Amino acid sequence: MIDLENNNTLKVFAGRHSMALATKVVEHLGIRLGQVRIESFPDGETMVKLEDDVRGRDCFVLLSTGYPVNDNLMELLIFIDCLRRASAKRITAVIPYFGYARQDRKDEGRVPITAKLVANLITAARADRVLAIDLHAAQIQGFFDLPLDHLSATPVFVKYFRSIRDQLGDLCLVSPDVGNVKVAETFANLLGGELAVIMKRRISGSQVVTGNIIGSVEGKTVLMFDDMISTGGTIVQAAELVRKNGAKRVIAAATHAVCAGAAIDRLAKSEHISQIVVGNTIDISDRFAALKPKMVELCVGTLLGEAIYRIHNNLSISELFRDTAGTKR
Amino acid sequence: MIDLENNNTLKVFAGRHSMALATKVVEHLGIRLGQVRIESFPDGETMVKLEDDVRGRDCFVLLSTGYPVNDNLMELLIFIDCLRRASAKRITAVIPYFGYARQDRKDEGRVPITAKLVANLITAARADRVLAIDLHAAQIQGFFDLPLDHLSATPVFVKYFRSIRDQLGDLCLVSPDVGNVKVAETFANLLGGELAVIMKRRISGSQVVTGNIIGSVEGKTVLMFDDMISTGGTIVQAAELVRKNGAKRVIAAATHAVCAGAAIDRLAKSEHISQIVVGNTIDISDRFAALKPKMVELCVGTLLGEAIYRIHNNLSISELFRDTAGTKR
Amino acid sequence: MIDLENNNTLKVFAGRHSMALATKVVEHLGIRLGQVRIESFPDGETMVKLEDDVRGRDCFVLLSTGYPVNDNLMELLIFIDCLRRASAKRITAVIPYFGYARQDRKDEGRVPITAKLVANLITAARADRVLAIDLHAAQIQGFFDLPLDHLSATPVFVKYFRSIRDQLGDLCLVSPDVGNVKVAETFANLLGGELAVIMKRRISGSQVVTGNIIGSVEGKTVLMFDDMISTGGTIVQAAELVRKNGAKRVIAAATHAVCAGAAIDRLAKSEHISQIVVGNTIDISDRFAALKPKMVELCVGTLLGEAIYRIHNNLSISELFRDTAGTKR
Amino acid sequence: MIDLENNNTLKVFAGRHSMALATKVVEHLGIRLGQVRIESFPDGETMVKLEDDVRGRDCFVLLSTGYPVNDNLMELLIFIDCLRRASAKRITAVIPYFGYARQDRKDEGRVPITAKLVANLITAARADRVLAIDLHAAQIQGFFDLPLDHLSATPVFVKYFRSIRDQLGDLCLVSPDVGNVKVAETFANLLGGELAVIMKRRISGSQVVTGNIIGSVEGKTVLMFDDMISTGGTIVQAAELVRKNGAKRVIAAATHAVCAGAAIDRLAKSEHISQIVVGNTIDISDRFAALKPKMVELCVGTLLGEAIYRIHNNLSISELFRDTAGTKR
Amino acid sequence: MIDLENNNTLKVFAGRHSMALATKVVEHLGIRLGQVRIESFPDGETMVKLEDDVRGRDCFVLLSTGYPVNDNLMELLIFIDCLRRASAKRITAVIPYFGYARQDRKDEGRVPITAKLVANLITAARADRVLAIDLHAAQIQGFFDLPLDHLSATPVFVKYFRSIRDQLGDLCLVSPDVGNVKVAETFANLLGGELAVIMKRRISGSQVVTGNIIGSVEGKTVLMFDDMISTGGTIVQAAELVRKNGAKRVIAAATHAVCAGAAIDRLAKSEHISQIVVGNTIDISDRFAALKPKMVELCVGTLLGEAIYRIHNNLSISELFRDTAGTKR
Amino acid sequence: MIDLENNNTLKVFAGRHSMALATKVVEHLGIRLGQVRIESFPDGETMVKLEDDVRGRDCFVLLSTGYPVNDNLMELLIFIDCLRRASAKRITAVIPYFGYARQDRKDEGRVPITAKLVANLITAARADRVLAIDLHAAQIQGFFDLPLDHLSATPVFVKYFRSIRDQLGDLCLVSPDVGNVKVAETFANLLGGELAVIMKRRISGSQVVTGNIIGSVEGKTVLMFDDMISTGGTIVQAAELVRKNGAKRVIAAATHAVCAGAAIDRLAKSEHISQIVVGNTIDISDRFAALKPKMVELCVGTLLGEAIYRIHNNLSISELFRDTAGTKR
Repeated sequence: MIDLENNNTLKVFAGRHSMALATKVVEHLGIRLGQVRIESFPDGETMVKLEDDVRGRDCFVLLSTGYPVNDNLMELLIFIDCLRRASAKRITAVIPYFGYARQDRKDEGRVPITAKLVANLITAARADRVLAIDLHAAQIQGFFDLPLDHLSATPVFVKYFRSIRDQLGDLCLVSPDVGNVKVAETFANLLGGELAVIMKRRISGSQVVTGNIIGSVEGKTVLMFDDMISTGGTIVQAAELVRKNGAKRVIAAATHAVCAGAAIDRLAKSEHISQIVVGNTIDISDRFAALKPKMVELCVGTLLGEAIYRIHNNLSISELFRDTAGTKR
Repeated sequence: MIDLENNNTLKVFAGRHSMALATKVVEHLGIRLGQVRIESFPDGETMVKLEDDVRGRDCFVLLSTGYPVNDNLMELLIFIDCLRRASAKRITAVIPYFGYARQDRKDEGRVPITAKLVANLITAARADRVLAIDLHAAQIQGFFDLPLDHLSATPVFVKYFRSIRDQLGDLCLVSPDVGNVKVAETFANLLGGELAVIMKRRISGSQVVTGNIIGSVEGKTVLMFDDMISTGGTIVQAAELVRKNGAKRVIAAATHAVCAGAAIDRLAKSEHISQIVVGNTIDISDRFAALKPKMVELCVGTLLGEAIYRIHNNLSISELFRDTAGTKR
Repeated sequence: MIDLENNNTLKVFAGRHSMALATKVVEHLGIRLGQVRIESFPDGETMVKLEDDVRGRDCFVLLSTGYPVNDNLMELLIFIDCLRRASAKRITAVIPYFGYARQDRKDEGRVPITAKLVANLITAARADRVLAIDLHAAQIQGFFDLPLDHLSATPVFVKYFRSIRDQLGDLCLVSPDVGNVKVAETFANLLGGELAVIMKRRISGSQVVTGNIIGSVEGKTVLMFDDMISTGGTIVQAAELVRKNGAKRVIAAATHAVCAGAAIDRLAKSEHISQIVVGNTIDISDRFAALKPKMVELCVGTLLGEAIYRIHNNLSISELFRDTAGTKR
Repeated sequence: MIDLENNNTLKVFAGRHSMALATKVVEHLGIRLGQVRIESFPDGETMVKLEDDVRGRDCFVLLSTGYPVNDNLMELLIFIDCLRRASAKRITAVIPYFGYARQDRKDEGRVPITAKLVANLITAARADRVLAIDLHAAQIQGFFDLPLDHLSATPVFVKYFRSIRDQLGDLCLVSPDVGNVKVAETFANLLGGELAVIMKRRISGSQVVTGNIIGSVEGKTVLMFDDMISTGGTIVQAAELVRKNGAKRVIAAATHAVCAGAAIDRLAKSEHISQIVVGNTIDISDRFAALKPKMVELCVGTLLGEAIYRIHNNLSISELFRDTAGTKR
Repeated sequence: MIDLENNNTLKVFAGRHSMALATKVVEHLGIRLGQVRIESFPDGETMVKLEDDVRGRDCFVLLSTGYPVNDNLMELLIFIDCLRRASAKRITAVIPYFGYARQDRKDEGRVPITAKLVANLITAARADRVLAIDLHAAQIQGFFDLPLDHLSATPVFVKYFRSIRDQLGDLCLVSPDVGNVKVAETFANLLGGELAVIMKRRISGSQVVTGNIIGSVEGKTVLMFDDMISTGGTIVQAAELVRKNGAKRVIAAATHAVCAGAAIDRLAKSEHISQIVVGNTIDISDRFAALKPKMVELCVGTLLGEAIYRIHNNLSISELFRDTAGTKR
Repeated sequence: MIDLENNNTLKVFAGRHSMALATKVVEHLGIRLGQVRIESFPDGETMVKLEDDVRGRDCFVLLSTGYPVNDNLMELLIFIDCLRRASAKRITAVIPYFGYARQDRKDEGRVPITAKLVANLITAARADRVLAIDLHAAQIQGFFDLPLDHLSATPVFVKYFRSIRDQLGDLCLVSPDVGNVKVAETFANLLGGELAVIMKRRISGSQVVTGNIIGSVEGKTVLMFDDMISTGGTIVQAAELVRKNGAKRVIAAATHAVCAGAAIDRLAKSEHISQIVVGNTIDISDRFAALKPKMVELCVGTLLGEAIYRIHNNLSISELFRDTAGTKR
């Protein structure tokens, strides 16, 4: 419980798909969640109506733009427009999971950069600030000209893995995708472990792709950390590969449990993955039931709550704000 | 079939929910529909990839933002971003049915003006122009600073009703809502008919509301025209009321067949409504099956195609462009 | 008289044509009007020079953009630029009567949407907020992305008519234009009265137009309420028509007494109109002399003053802020 | 008469107060003036309705923002909005006399910079380019981010004075205001003459001001050139002073004949000024009658017409475009 | 030493080339300079890292954009971006000397208006306000839409010259350039002196130029004041000319000691200039050593410090803020 | 030599530090380089004056923003402003090496995102498009809302290495930094080679860092490819490490030869690096002399020239435009 003397003008609201996390956040802040009525009309139009007065208040609206991403994104944008026209003093869009983040560049011709479009939409809706966790690419910060606080869930995960470090034995961090080796390196250093990389290789000129492992996983506990688990396909294949190469056990971890489509089923059924550790940036709803036996859910509510507290009170959040995805320079 | 000599740089694309109408449009234009791959990822993210080159082309992207409105709207925005980054010369968003149009003002405190937000989003996605039909309120034109061509489907409807005018007998135009009497007046003048209005009246201070009719419907064919049929509730009630007051028959008509939720069932079952006449701005898909026996579908494809032809070739569209919702001044 | 403890940084200024109303407003607020020197040079250029310091102050500048509309509008824009460059903390444009509001859409080709242009000009001058009363169309709210508080003068008028309700006898609300039936319906419900509508009908194909009445006015007191009385032509004709149809007496009412050109003379001479009830959003100056014998002037100064007080102090104005022009949905 | 082969998409329109000049311009271009209906409603609102189609056309709208400056400025802005919404391809605001130009900086606290506000308004109305003549300060070019072509009328005046050079005898250029010596220097060099300056001096601490002449005017023809003649006060006083100091004759010249308020009368009556030479950037209407006996009117229509021709056809206008007000560096 | 009770959120930072002046400023304010690490990488990239927290603080960043102007300008822009992203509440760019100010208009075709570009860059970096001293042209204020406080160093210079007024004897203010006579006139009035002007005259059609003096300098102390001394060429030539015409002594003065290239050497060697009086808006570093024997440095630190104090505390700075370069109207 | 029929309105200009590359580009295009005078004033101010007319032309301005980065960047921005005000039809900033690209996110608190600032500055200068090669992070594309064509120099490098493939023997691609493994993987697949990664590891808690190799380099030719060589420190250390681990030979390659500070000397002296292969996006000037014996310079002029040709003629550049840094999804 934290000091509240400056919090009388602080309002925290949440969209419909982030109620569970928002509850944790306001609990940390010791305030009640802002009252709002959100409805979907039969034709799919979203209607937001504030039931608390927000004039001159410092407002935070929390909503991850995960599945169903378009509905959540529009709900967020309409919410911001609503707060703006209701004369909120400042509006911070709190987006624990930032959808469309993988469409962050044109890696072929004639495609959009939807992550930038989303940043532009949030700006066009007239938010003042953004608060996010473990963006898919740190450069997405620069898609905004709004001040953006980028939190890392790494301390939350490191704390957990240190609490079970003894059980893990020899540890090897494996990056299932060469685009994300940096994060594996960071965890290897923080938890004390080796590093291995899975390289994609083309067989002949066709598009058939296979992976081989650079580095050794023999007899080790393999930890694969990514910012998100999406369809689960890459991670399940990687788990199989490292197990074939002698890994004792595989733990998969990710900040954002997107787990779209058949992912939950696929992960639940994978005999190669013994544990899944995920954050609750995306609501761990009933659809995760099949996965729960081997799933550990880590809460980012305190992290977000503390960040909101500090933003509201103009306190430094540099301690919280450490992009452990590392620096290239 | 129209002259094509200047059309070599014209590209017409369509979103997934407006394919049927787009087919009619390009048929009128005598060109083939632009090739594009649009997919929804398992997590709901929309992906657009152009398969035709659009550099320096005059591009039109056609998509009604009806149900599911948020998916359609995001598809449209992503499509525009994609065209922009692919160096289209000019991008016209063709939105036959403009969703969220009813949220066009704050009629109570603490609500958004979502129709303006949508206009801002389309602008933020960097469209150059907009083409729309029968906007819920003509003032939505002013929500845009982009040039906007506002077509009226009235001539399409008038042409149809004139073709069956003899069968209609004594005609009375009834506005089920006093906010829309102007349109009823316009049709009364164009088709030769009387006018009646349904007034809402509060019984005591509670919210119970009843309607009474101003004007006479006795023995007449009643035609109720609105820009859209949404849940169908108002129109079904109005039909019952005019029938109780002696109307011989009721025809309901609307440009946009939103028909959300239980609307189709409700309209199909209403014994008071003998015919439903709608435009195809919103795809008349299989879900309309129950309504088809008494439904007449009027095509706006030629109207749109001709407008696109004229916009592309810098020809006046003032003939097409006549806001028959009328003038107040 | 209201509490002033937070009002020390509140400054209210007025343009030259709204001094009378501004005096009422500051009286309600218990502060003195901000000092400014405004002059017109011989070539018509307007010069504004603040004589009070406004650094860091919450500034409101009140000016209706009625006749002469271009001079008033430029005076308002220059005033805003002046406040901005003098480092006002926040600038609210208080525009009791918003000129050019009837040019709010393109109802024919090749015309401007001047109401939107005006909104853009006010934004370009860098106002922070807008405060307006009874906009001609509620959608004009959406022409602004600035927060806008839209007040309704309806309570002021209802209070007056209730105070004389006994004298009115059987009451019928008549809308002289089918575009504005909603307001008539609202008053009918609030004051207890019937409703009638005047329909325009074309005789043959020429532009000659005549009106006939839908509903009965026989033996009743007819009240015609509109947001503004402009040239007075429509209302005088309507009054004649309802009197010919047996109305006992006609009262015309409007929030904004634009009364341009020959309007005052026309209204004064109309034997069919027995009373004119208007707000003072536009200065009721000497030119109204001929009309004064049958004119009742209702003051909106308290309404505006209270709204300014609440905006300044971040209090809800939802009670004041009720768009009684009604909702369409 | 110039070549027209590329002019088929060129449209030149004019506001009501610049019809005479526009007629000269289109005469040079060999095209007819664009058709438009402009009206002022009784309440002073300006209404613009194009009667020519402008879709895809390169449009120029010509209007000096002289007296009545606010009406002319709004007419220009509304005209631009109208062209934009009518889908003009490019809109150039041709503003021969740019009103409010003297309010181009804050030389005391709490005043606006109205010239910049005007630039922002023109930009907000969405003009694409600006074409102006002899801006009061060359820096006003930088108030715009739009491309602006700044023409100088100096060649027109130099041509005239050279044609009468023999009659002028010994010539002395006198700057009535030390802020404008640069222009006098330029003319002195171009016409072959001396230079003198009138210095303002304060008597004691009060605000009484007198002028004394730096340089000699004895027995000479004095030519005083300024960008504009406004109230005429300064120039009449300066004429008297130089005559007292022995000048033989005084000619006053200016590009812009603002001649506001009593200026015409004052100049007509001044026995010290023998000739007034002015451009026709501002309409030389009937109100100038008293001044006509000693007035020479120089036409800038060819200058403007040629500039428009070159802008439309992407030809260099560097020959026309020479800011003879000089360079400081 | 001034009152500090409201200064707890005030932060003043400085770029590397304005440390000396910033030290004077914070001394006046009684606060310590904000901590920051600024480095140039080997490839010339500038890196700014704040070492103080600035969340919610009122931040001023002081940096003259003198030599090396591009490095200083980029350092300023990066600093502003850094403060913005670190959530400063308000950012004021304090630019005692505003580089590129002489490129403030197009006086020939095909050149940029770099001063406006610089204003746009500062705005794009998202500064909130600007504070400057003796801008080369007062109109540069209008290049910004941000509030800008324009200080004049004239009082600092007048105070100095009055303190030595007795030693100056008969005084003549000479403007070496007709574009700047206004300032000379102002000083002549404030210090009690005559005025003379140097006119440039072309010999034949070639570009050879010579100057002759309008007014008398015989036996007088000549004071030449300009906003800046750049290459020193004009002033050294003017000094020689007035000495040849009998001036007893020449004092050159300027707010901004740009003194680029060979200027210091040229001024140091000129036997015609006996004293150089300059402000310290640009750092008077070691490179000025040769000039120091005849140089007087006037400090603007108190002026700036007081302005910052007043801006921060919302006090009027109209006393400080007096553009003594005069008014044209 | 390519077809020129559409190139008559194409103009290619270059900044001073990219003349050599620009010469290659216009050679490919078969046009002459646009004429311009660029100077630095003694105080460091950059002056750009076009000597060719650009009205209505499609203009490209080519300048890498390498050392001295601030001067080059300002030269580019001023150039763009100059082209804009000279009425260029379209301006494409061609930036082969995009400076400040490594400051593309906040990886610690209180730092700027200078790469985004630079994107904003280029946009504020009003460029229409950007053309770049091998951006440090592909996400920088999204820092722009302008259309940006992102070329890859990979084909140029692959072509070279394939031409000497036989000499290379067993090949191992080594990423000296785990942040860039993706590129190494790409080259490994394209050239047929193994992959190895150098992992940074902290010894105790202090900041001392050492690297160990994941994968085997024993007896192989090691190729290290990066987008740029900056100080050369990382690459020299990596070369030493792989050589200690048995690598036969080390070739370092990079698109951008930034080679700042002591880099050239360091690379020249490194006995572990046998060859340096670089692009000429940054001018390979005389300062590279020491490195030339073991340096191979690959020209990107044809790549750029072809891209410009295609952009100008609205041809697809998807073949050129292939971000071989790969896709993450």
